[in-house]
Formats: sequence, C-alpha cells, structure tokens
Amino acid sequence: MAQKYTTREEDYSKWYNELVYRADLAEHSDVKGCMVIKPYGYAIWEMMKDILDKKFKETGHSNAYFPLFIPKSYFSKEASHIEGFAKECAVVTHYRLKNAEDGSGVIVDPTAKLEEELIVRPTSETIIWNSYKNWIQSYRDLPILINQWANVVRWEMRTRLFLRTTEFLWQEGHTAHATKAEAISEAELMLEVYADFAENYMAMPVIKGRKTESERFAGALDTYCIESMMQDGKALQAGTSHFLGQNFAKAFDVKFADKEGKLEYVWATSWGVSTRLMGALIMTHSDDEGLVLPPALAPIQVVAVPIHKTEEELELINEKMVDLAAKFKALGISFKYDNDINRRPGWKFAEYESKGVPVRIAIGPRDLANGKAEVARRDTKTKEVVDFDGIEIYIQNLLDAIQSNLLIRANAYRAEKTQKVDSYEEFKSLIDKGGFFLAHWDGTKETEAKIKEETQATIRCIALDQEMEEGFCMVTGKPSASRVVFAKAY
Amino acid sequence: MAQKYTTREEDYSKWYNELVYRADLAEHSDVKGCMVIKPYGYAIWEMMKDILDKKFKETGHSNAYFPLFIPKSYFSKEASHIEGFAKECAVVTHYRLKNAEDGSGVIVDPTAKLEEELIVRPTSETIIWNSYKNWIQSYRDLPILINQWANVVRWEMRTRLFLRTTEFLWQEGHTAHATKAEAISEAELMLEVYADFAENYMAMPVIKGRKTESERFAGALDTYCIESMMQDGKALQAGTSHFLGQNFAKAFDVKFADKEGKLEYVWATSWGVSTRLMGALIMTHSDDEGLVLPPALAPIQVVAVPIHKTEEELELINEKMVDLAAKFKALGISFKYDNDINRRPGWKFAEYESKGVPVRIAIGPRDLANGKAEVARRDTKTKEVVDFDGIEIYIQNLLDAIQSNLLIRANAYRAEKTQKVDSYEEFKSLIDKGGFFLAHWDGTKETEAKIKEETQATIRCIALDQEMEEGFCMVTGKPSASRVVFAKAY
Repeated sequence: MAQKYTTREEDYSKWYNELVYRADLAEHSDVKGCMVIKPYGYAIWEMMKDILDKKFKETGHSNAYFPLFIPKSYFSKEASHIEGFAKECAVVTHYRLKNAEDGSGVIVDPTAKLEEELIVRPTSETIIWNSYKNWIQSYRDLPILINQWANVVRWEMRTRLFLRTTEFLWQEGHTAHATKAEAISEAELMLEVYADFAENYMAMPVIKGRKTESERFAGALDTYCIESMMQDGKALQAGTSHFLGQNFAKAFDVKFADKEGKLEYVWATSWGVSTRLMGALIMTHSDDEGLVLPPALAPIQVVAVPIHKTEEELELINEKMVDLAAKFKALGISFKYDNDINRRPGWKFAEYESKGVPVRIAIGPRDLANGKAEVARRDTKTKEVVDFDGIEIYIQNLLDAIQSNLLIRANAYRAEKTQKVDSYEEFKSLIDKGGFFLAHWDGTKETEAKIKEETQATIRCIALDQEMEEGFCMVTGKPSASRVVFAKAY
Repeated sequence: MAQKYTTREEDYSKWYNELVYRADLAEHSDVKGCMVIKPYGYAIWEMMKDILDKKFKETGHSNAYFPLFIPKSYFSKEASHIEGFAKECAVVTHYRLKNAEDGSGVIVDPTAKLEEELIVRPTSETIIWNSYKNWIQSYRDLPILINQWANVVRWEMRTRLFLRTTEFLWQEGHTAHATKAEAISEAELMLEVYADFAENYMAMPVIKGRKTESERFAGALDTYCIESMMQDGKALQAGTSHFLGQNFAKAFDVKFADKEGKLEYVWATSWGVSTRLMGALIMTHSDDEGLVLPPALAPIQVVAVPIHKTEEELELINEKMVDLAAKFKALGISFKYDNDINRRPGWKFAEYESKGVPVRIAIGPRDLANGKAEVARRDTKTKEVVDFDGIEIYIQNLLDAIQSNLLIRANAYRAEKTQKVDSYEEFKSLIDKGGFFLAHWDGTKETEAKIKEETQATIRCIALDQEMEEGFCMVTGKPSASRVVFAKAY
C-alpha cells in the first residue's frame, strides 16, 4: 500500500537519505549545504542535548556564549589551526544592503565594506582564547570549564543530511588549566562522558581511542575520539576531545601567575559533538521499514492506535486510553494516543514504524472485551497480546529490554565485522567489504598515507582499551607496539 | 574597601554598563557590537529559556531549526519586510580563504565568490515561509506551530550589552493557520505567555498593547507587545507577537486546500523575545550595590558564608552546611556554600550582593553555639537572626516573599511614574523626567511623527486592558477614542 523505499542492501546511501525524509527528521534547504531540522528530528536532538548538558554540568562545566563572527586575522595566530580550518568558511565582507537603482531588488552596498573581514565560526578556539586572555591572571582563575551550544559553519562541497552539512549545531567545550596533567585528565574525562552517552543512551558501542598525528584536530597535541560502526561497516567518528597543550595560550599570549608568582602559559582542551550524532543514531539501528530509536532518545516511546468500526467502539477505547495516559505519565513514559479519524490504522502503523517509535499498542473492541491489547516492538518487529491490566508495567520493562537489545545487537554486529588482519594483501582484499580491521602499523605518516591512498581506509584510532600485542607492520614489516583500528569512514 | 561604582542617580547608563561587568554577566568582545555572555549571565538566560520553552510546549509548539543564511533575493519578496530589515545586516560574499602569497597571513580567495550573496538572518520569516511552502498542501497540514531558538544578526551602529547588540540570542515562533481568527488568537495567546513570564518570573510588570502602524514589525498587520518601565522611567519593549496576515504566504506562494478543496493563502504569526530580556531584568530591580534577581531566575538562590577564626570552627560550620545543603536540595532551592579560604567574608558579601543572590546566610561559631544564623535579603538589604533549626523552611518562605516584593515594588514604581496628560505643553514639560504618559492622540502618523520629532517620545502601545475614554488629541484637538501610552524608550 505504501511507497516502495530503497533497502539498505540495494543502496545504503539512498536508503539513508530516504529515511531522513520519511521519518520527517530533516530536509535540504534552498541554501546550499544547509539543512532544515524538522520538529521530530529536532526533538531527538533536544533529548541528546539535555542529557549531555546535564552530564557537562555534573562534571563541573558551565555554559556561556561567544560571538558568531571571528576576525580573519585571528586564524593566522595559531599556525597549524589555520592549515586545518580557515580555508573553507563563510566570509562576511559587507554590512549593508540597499535598493538597486533600477528597482530590481536589493544589492550589496559597496560603501559598507568591512575593514577586516569576519569569518563565521567553524570552531571557536581563537575567539574564546582571545577572551580567556583577559579572564586569566592567576592560578586562582583556573580552571575555566566552559561549554557552548552553538551553530558553526564549514563550507562543504559534498553534503549529507546530519553527517556533513555546511551549517551544523554542536557543543564545544573549551577549558583552561594550570597543569598539563589536569588538562589531559579533562580531555580523557570528556571522552568518557561521550562514550557513556553513546553506549547508554544511543545504544551505540564505541571504541575509545587516540588519533594518529595526521588525523588530529588542527592545533591539538592529542585528539581522543569515539569511533562507531555503521551498518554498512563504515566507521563514523562520533565525538572528539582534544588536548591542546599550550598552543592556543601561546598564540593568544595567555599566561597565569602560579602560587610562587611565576608566569606560565595556560594548558587547554576542547571537545565537541554535533548533529552528526543524529546520523550515527540513524545508521546504527534503523532498518528497511524506517527509523529505529532507542527508548532513551525517543520523543514518543509508546504510541497507541485504536482499531474500531463504530463511534461507540472508539469512545470505549478513548476512555481506556485516558487512564493509560495517566499511568504512563506517572512512570515518566512519553505516550501518544493517535485517534485521528482521518487516518486508517494501517497508515498509522507504517507512520510510527517509519518514525521509530519503540512500542506500539493496538486495541480493538474484541481486545477490550477480553481485557487485552496487542503490543508490538519496533526493534524486533514481534507482537504479543498482553493483559491490559498492568500493561504499563509490562511496557516499562519492555522499553528497558529494547534499550538493552539495541546495544547488544549493535555490539554483535560490530564484533562480527571486526577482524585482525596481518597481511596487507589480505587487508586490501577485505577492506571493501567494510568493517574494522585491527592491524599492525609502523607508526609512520608515510605508511599511513600509502594505505589511505591505496585503499581509502584510514586509521580510525589507536584504541585505549586493548591488549598490548607486539607485531610487525602489515605494509613495511617494521616493528609495531600494538594493533590500530583501520576502516573506511564517513 | 571596594571599588567605587557609579550610582543610578549619577549616571544611569554608566551604572548599567558597570553592573553588567561587575556581576559578571557579559562583556564586549573584540568583534564590534558582539558580546560574550559569561557563565553567570548565561545561567540566567538558560533559566529564562527553560521556562519559556516549557510554556511554548504546553501551548502546543515544537522546536525546529532553520538555516542561518538567507539568500539575498528572499528579502525582496515581501515588500514591506525588506524596508524594515534587509538594510543593516551581515553579508556573506565568499566561501574560502587562502594563504597570502607574501606570507603575511590569510586573505579572501577572490575566486570563491558566491553567485548570490547570503544574509546572516536578522529574523527568519522568509527562509521559514520558503520551507512552509513545501510543507503545506491541505487544511490537514495546519496549524504549524513551530519555534526556533537561534542567534540573529542586525548590524547596529550603537550597541549596549544585552539591550542592543549586533548578534543576539532569541526565540522566534512562526506559525501557519487556516483562518484569520485562529492566527489572531495565536498572536494574542503568545502575548499572554510573554506577559505571564514577565510578571510571574521576572517580577516585571508589563503593559500589554498593540503597536501603532508606524511602530509595527515590517510585514505585520498587527504587532502586539509587552512594554515595561525601567528605573530611569524609560520604556523597554520586552517582547512582540505579530499577526502577519497573508503577507508572507503571498510572498512565498503558500496556499492550502480547505475542506471544500478551495485554495486559500495561509495565515501567519511570528513572535519573539531575546537576550534583551536580560537588560530588562537588570534595569527593573537592581540597585547601586549591584544586581537584584527575582528568586525564580536566580542561578544561586541562597549563599552561605562561614565567619570563622580557627580551622576547627570552620569544620563545625562545614558539617552543618552539608546537612543544610541536603535540605535545600530536597526543597528544590539552589544553594551555594562558599567556604573558600582564600577570600574574606567581606569580599564574599560584596561579591554575592553584586551578583544579586536573593538570600545570604552568615554563620559564625557563636551563632552555631546559639543555634542561630544571620539571614540577609538582597532586595531590602535587611537582616534577621533566625533559628538554625527549620531555617530551610524560613528561607523557602522568604524566597516567595522576595519574589512578590519585587513585583510589588516595580508595580509601585511604575504607578508613581505613570500619569495622564491632557495638554501637549504639559507633556513637553514633563517628558524629560521619564515615565509613561497616557494621552489622547488623533490616530494619525503625522501627529505621531511630530511628537517623536519634537520630544523623542514614541507611542509605546495602545493598551489592551484599559478603560475606553473618549477625548481629544493633545496636539491637534481632534477626537480620540482612547488614551495611548507615550514614553521615551530603549
């Protein structure tokens, strides 16, 4: 009855794009590379935001807000930062429009040219460290633990909804510390916060690791990351936490007097996750019928659909649902009862399936007479007939079970698609099938670049939690202290 | 002992600027007209945001997110909108920087020029209605009730922290309706939401009214507003809600099929409040010692400061405070115990006074022995010695009393500074003293413009809740159906 959608098997990328539209999460806008996040998609992002924000506050951080615009010259101050960032960005050159003399509309007023161009922030290290300079004099002013929720712009040529867009929403933490050890601990702490969020809310297993030098953030001494595996076997970097050393403090001349009055440069971190997490969430769990959401991030956890022929039947079901709604509310379960008479049950079933609502209740007059209801779970697509009496408790447990099941399933998938490889020939023959490949590498940029060029695979990270296992680089045969994670990536 | 600050009496405007810095709310950034909202200021804004967001959701709205950039041509589509908005704005003309050939830094890459310039949104009606065009086909798609929390940019020549900045944070609601009556109801409902928030959370009395034609939002058929009075007698427009008629639907060709299948243009509203509310909050309650916050919007509602000589004394006070903190937590009262040994009590008293913390507890060893503590309230600067046993309940009631008192005090101030005036001579002689002047006006743009030119006073609004009282225009002597509110304004 419904439109035929592309399956994952047929075309993973097309399946993804269709799903984002079908579940009403986001759409392309008329502005190249910029998306509109629709209410249902935004509701999921808001849930992510609220949970993360709480975690940031629990770990001692406060929110603040810094300007959208960064003077062009700031980007020249930290040498490696400019290499990585300042190239593809939105440049504001004028501050006024005027009516065209020929009445054809508006034109840019050439007399309103800025003396120095402003860049729409691609990330805020420079503008923030320029402020920190005035905030920090002594060790008493440290640490500074600030986070910002903001929009950022990176001019992208090829964009994909949520995964890579010119404008995106994110949070960026920027902290300042008196010691190197404290800054490293902070970067590691925030990596743990991200990993915990990914596993316990997104039900998405991640590998915590360090980036190699060539994959590091521009300006960082060390980049920690969480890497997840999508259903096509490709890796997705879901969050990063950077130990920035004293690079930005030196670039913006930020020193503090220690307890002995000696001036020292301040140590820094920055860390961020973005609306890209939405893409990761979608691609970790969803199936050919649409979105699959973990209950912890579902704007609607339970939907109920009445199956009725007469108005009297509907009235009876409506009454039952008023009671049930109150019970769900008391349990903190978000519930929607959809008794819209303009839509048929079949349409509603497909709709809520597309939207990934974890549990669906269907109830008709016969169920009502028998004190039963049909409960369907989205993740396994199984149905059960359940006693209506106490159904809220049954569903509360079911939501927990779905949350666990999604993580277990994603873990199993990842385990299946992760393998050790010892020869480069084998690596090359397998890499196109997708998955994570644990291989030895000699630690040089040259070998890393060669592998990337020949296979498009990159080192996703050097995992933090791994058995140390000495070996020999699969390409050069030189000694290697431990395996690293290779994959093709988003 | 502390720095001498400017008083309101000496220089109201200087007092305001100093206070914003002193309370650590915000500061100017190096980017002209853009501010940095510091953690304490942002915490207040977050509380405002959370309360408003809840109210928007309770009235059926969902959040979404639309692009930061708007193609220049969109502004030409709604004729009156361009007049009001598109002039002073940030224009993005290029999308890439490159290294200067002389190694002097980065320059804008002239080859990366956009075909059509992009405007950083000053408000989002155009880009949103361009999306709604694709979302609306039939009456079943209506109403659309969407809100967006976002940053916007209006290039301002003279800026003041929170009150008028080039970039500011706000929310903008954009709704689409099938009928005129429904759209008008929506605009009125949101005005009520704003007024309720202003009075019951900000403790700021407001006049709800309609703008005259010349003060309307560019593109609106009717602009509703809430107007508040600052302590210098000037008016501040704290929020607006616009009935946009079918103007944007016509500009973007957004039609819907009604139940009979007839195509009609969609009816629209938009409504917004911004970080300007922070300025209003500050100027409604604060005094020469610093910020005064209503408890409902105080990030720290209660602070406790130990007064001790020995370490043993401090230990004893610390123990008591652990218990008290748990009691406050259970009551939902935000509490900070400041036992930092690097700062003296006097410094702390001044600090929390500057920051507007509503209640301060001071406790020393003698108090401890007597089972007492000193409780000081920020609004009246009175102190009382209170039994420590049950102090949390005493303070819970005190916070309510402070919240009420601030509204009563602001109401009394406004009543004192509001007067009826019947002659233009009297009006001119009084207007510089500040306050609201209720006067008759003949309803013409010409008279309104003449008054503005001669006195700098504007018609703030035509109040919704007022006795109808016929009379004669104070300037022209022509008949008038009711008085309107004149004032000088921010």
